[in-house]
Amino acid sequence: MRCEIVALGTELLLGQIVDTNSAWLAERLATLGVDCYFQARVGDNLTRIQEALRQALARSDVVITCGGLGPTQDDITRQAIADVMGVPLQRDPALFTRIEAIFHQRGRPFADNNALQADVPVGAQAMPTIVGTAPGLICPVGDKLIYALPGVPWEMKEMFETDVLPDLLRQRARYGDAAATIVNHTLYCLGLGESVIAARLTPRLQALEASGNPTIAFLASEVAGVRVRITAKAADAEEARRMLEDEAREVRALLGDAVFSEGDDDPAHHLPEAVVLRLLEERGQTLAVAESLTGGGIGARLTSIAGASRVFRGGIIAYASAVKFDLLDVPPGPVVSEETAAHMARNVCRVLHADVGLAATGVAGLDSQEGLSPGTVCVAVAWKGEVTTRTLNLAGRPREQIRILTATWLFDMLRRKIMNVPAASH
Amino acid sequence: MRCEIVALGTELLLGQIVDTNSAWLAERLATLGVDCYFQARVGDNLTRIQEALRQALARSDVVITCGGLGPTQDDITRQAIADVMGVPLQRDPALFTRIEAIFHQRGRPFADNNALQADVPVGAQAMPTIVGTAPGLICPVGDKLIYALPGVPWEMKEMFETDVLPDLLRQRARYGDAAATIVNHTLYCLGLGESVIAARLTPRLQALEASGNPTIAFLASEVAGVRVRITAKAADAEEARRMLEDEAREVRALLGDAVFSEGDDDPAHHLPEAVVLRLLEERGQTLAVAESLTGGGIGARLTSIAGASRVFRGGIIAYASAVKFDLLDVPPGPVVSEETAAHMARNVCRVLHADVGLAATGVAGLDSQEGLSPGTVCVAVAWKGEVTTRTLNLAGRPREQIRILTATWLFDMLRRKIMNVPAASH
Repeated sequence: MRCEIVALGTELLLGQIVDTNSAWLAERLATLGVDCYFQARVGDNLTRIQEALRQALARSDVVITCGGLGPTQDDITRQAIADVMGVPLQRDPALFTRIEAIFHQRGRPFADNNALQADVPVGAQAMPTIVGTAPGLICPVGDKLIYALPGVPWEMKEMFETDVLPDLLRQRARYGDAAATIVNHTLYCLGLGESVIAARLTPRLQALEASGNPTIAFLASEVAGVRVRITAKAADAEEARRMLEDEAREVRALLGDAVFSEGDDDPAHHLPEAVVLRLLEERGQTLAVAESLTGGGIGARLTSIAGASRVFRGGIIAYASAVKFDLLDVPPGPVVSEETAAHMARNVCRVLHADVGLAATGVAGLDSQEGLSPGTVCVAVAWKGEVTTRTLNLAGRPREQIRILTATWLFDMLRRKIMNVPAASH
Repeated sequence: MRCEIVALGTELLLGQIVDTNSAWLAERLATLGVDCYFQARVGDNLTRIQEALRQALARSDVVITCGGLGPTQDDITRQAIADVMGVPLQRDPALFTRIEAIFHQRGRPFADNNALQADVPVGAQAMPTIVGTAPGLICPVGDKLIYALPGVPWEMKEMFETDVLPDLLRQRARYGDAAATIVNHTLYCLGLGESVIAARLTPRLQALEASGNPTIAFLASEVAGVRVRITAKAADAEEARRMLEDEAREVRALLGDAVFSEGDDDPAHHLPEAVVLRLLEERGQTLAVAESLTGGGIGARLTSIAGASRVFRGGIIAYASAVKFDLLDVPPGPVVSEETAAHMARNVCRVLHADVGLAATGVAGLDSQEGLSPGTVCVAVAWKGEVTTRTLNLAGRPREQIRILTATWLFDMLRRKIMNVPAASH
C-alpha cells in the first residue's frame, strides 16, 4: 500500500507557516512501514486542490490531506474532495449538534460559519473524534481512500492516532501487504561534525553499498546534534532486528564517546536536554541554570521535557550585566569571560540550592561586545564542586543558532562530565 | 515566470526534519510576486529526484532545490541535476581550492569526502557565495533553470539573497513579465479567536467576493496570534497600494483593539514580544520576568529579538516552589494562584530593579497539581506599581502549547496595559 500526503493551504505556498504536519505524518508512516515516496503542497484554490488530489490518487492507494477544514471561506477541502468523489456536500445534522455542543462546553460563541464544518461529501464519513472544532473525514474514492485531517497540528496528530491509524491498518490488511518488516535504530551524537562522522563511517558505507541493506543515513541539527540512523529490512522482524544490531555494533565502535544516546523510539526522548535530565535523575542530583545570551532558552529546553521538575530547580536570567553582579556575585568587569561563566555556574547552585549548575555568557548580537566578536560564548558546568569552562567560537552564525548551539554544547559538556568521558575537541 | 520549489532529502519523507526551507523560499517568492503554485518533496533516490525535477521543469520556468549538496553518500542532488541536464559531473579545481580554504580558515579538518562538494555538472556554475561548505549551483536546462541550494536553513537563506535573488530578477526580465504589482498588508491580532475574527470580517469577505481583489486571508498561531493578510493586485504600485489602504481601513474598524501591530515587512518584527519591547523602549521602561511553568521560555522569546538588551534586564526561573519562596518572597502555600503570580511579578521588579514585571505560574504537565487541572495558568503583569492578574484555562492542549500561549497572553496583557485598551475577554 502506498500513501501520499497532500498539505493544503495558501499560507503554506506563501510561506507564512511551516508545514510541520507532513513531517509528523511522514514519520508515523515510516515507522509503520507504509511507503510514502512523495509529498505535495497546494494552495486554497479549488481547481488546483482537485488536480493535486487526482494526481495523488493516481499514484497512491491512500491520500492523507491536512488543512482547509476550518470555518472560513478559504477552507475548501470538503468541496474539493466532494468534487473528486463526484458527489455533493450535505449537512450532517448529528455532526452539527456535536460541533455546537463542543462550543457550548468550552464557553465559546458559535459563529454562523462554524456550521459549515458539519458539511460532509455524500458517501464520506466524519471521524468519531473531534479534537478542535473541525471534524476529520474518511472519503472513499472508488477503491481508494482520502483521509482529510485538520491543519492545526495537535488536532491533526490526535485524530490521526485515534481514527486514521486503526482504519489505515485495516486498509493495509485489505491490500494484503506481506509488509517486509522495516526496523530503525538511531545513534544520537554530539561533539563531532556531520562530515567527520561520515568520514569515520566510510568503511561501513562501503561495506553496505552492494546490498543496500541495512542503510545508514545522517541528519544534523543544532538542537539534537548528528543523528545516525540505521535502517534494516527483512522478511521477518527477528531477522531485521539481528541485522540492525550487528550494524549498530560496528557503527558504535567507530563513533565512540560521541554517541550520547541510542534508540528506535521517539527522537524527543533522545534530545540532549532529555538525556541530561535522565542522567541527573538517576543520580538524585538537581540542576540550576544561569543564563545571559540565551535569555532563558536553556531553562525552556529543559522544562519542555515532561518530568523536568524532578531535577530542574530553576535559574537566573542575568541578561543585564548588573543582574550578574547583584544576583550571581560576578565581580565587576568584563562579563564575557570564562571566569564570569564559572562564577555564574557556581553561584547559581548556591542561590538555588542545586547540585549542578550550567552557565552561559557571550555575544549573540551583530555587534562586538567588550572587544569580542559575535559568536564568542563562554560556558561553564559546575559539577561536584568543580567548575569546567570553555570558550566557544560560533562566529558567522545567526543569533538564534548561536543561542541554540550554546545550550546544546552545555548539555553535552554536562553529559561528558557525568559519564566521565573526555571533553569534545571541536 | 513560474517558479517551483523541490525539497530533497529522505529525512523529509521520513519526517525526521521539518521542511522550513520551502516555507521561507515561498514567502520570499510571494513577496517578489513570483507565482509558485506547487511544492514537492522527494527522498534521496536518484530516479525519483530526476522524475521530480523533470516534472517541475515541465510545469515551471525556474526550479529551486534545497538539500543534498553535502559531503555524504546520500547527497546526490549534483548527480541528479547533471543527469537531467544530460551532462557529466566534473571536479572544479578553483572551487576545490575555495572549499579547502574555508575548512582551513575555520580550523576544521578537511575530510576526503568534502572534495565531492567541488563536483559541478558541466555547463552549470557554482554560486559565488559559499556560506557553509556546500556551494550552490546555477544549472541551465534548455531554456529553463535550476538553482540548487544547500539544505541547512541559514546557509540556504543567505545564498538565496546574495546569489539567487539577483539572478532570478534578471530571469524574470528575460521572461518579460509585466509583473502586475502584488502588495500585502498584514494586521496582527491578539485576544480574539480566528473564527470570531472571520465572523466579524464577513461583510468585507462578501463585499470582495465578486472581484476577488483585494483578498483577505487568515492565519492563526499560538506564537503570533491571528494574522489577517490583505493582498491587492494592480497594474501599477500606486493603484495596488491605494486598494490596500482602503481595505485595511475597513478591516481595522471591524477588529478594533484586537489589532496589536500592522505592516507589510518581515512578520518577525510584529511578533508580540517584539511589539512589547518596542513599546517599552519608547517609554524608557525596563522589563523583568518571573517564570514557573514556562521555565525560561518568556525570556527566551524576548531575547530572540535583536536589541532586547535595551529593555530586558533578565528574570528568575522559579520552577521549584522553594525558589518562588526564597527568591521571590512568595508566601508558602499553593503556588498556582493569581496571588502567587502577583507576588512573582511585583517582586521580580524589585529584585532585578526593573520597571515592569511579567509572571506566570501554572500546570503544564499531564497531572493535576494542587487540585487544579492541566492547563490552569495564572499570569500577572506589574506595571507602574499596579498588578493585573488573570487565570487562563488552556485545558486540553499539549504541554508546549500551554507554555507558548501563556507567554503570548502575557505579552498581550502588557500591550493592553501600555496602550490603555481593555483586557481581552476570552
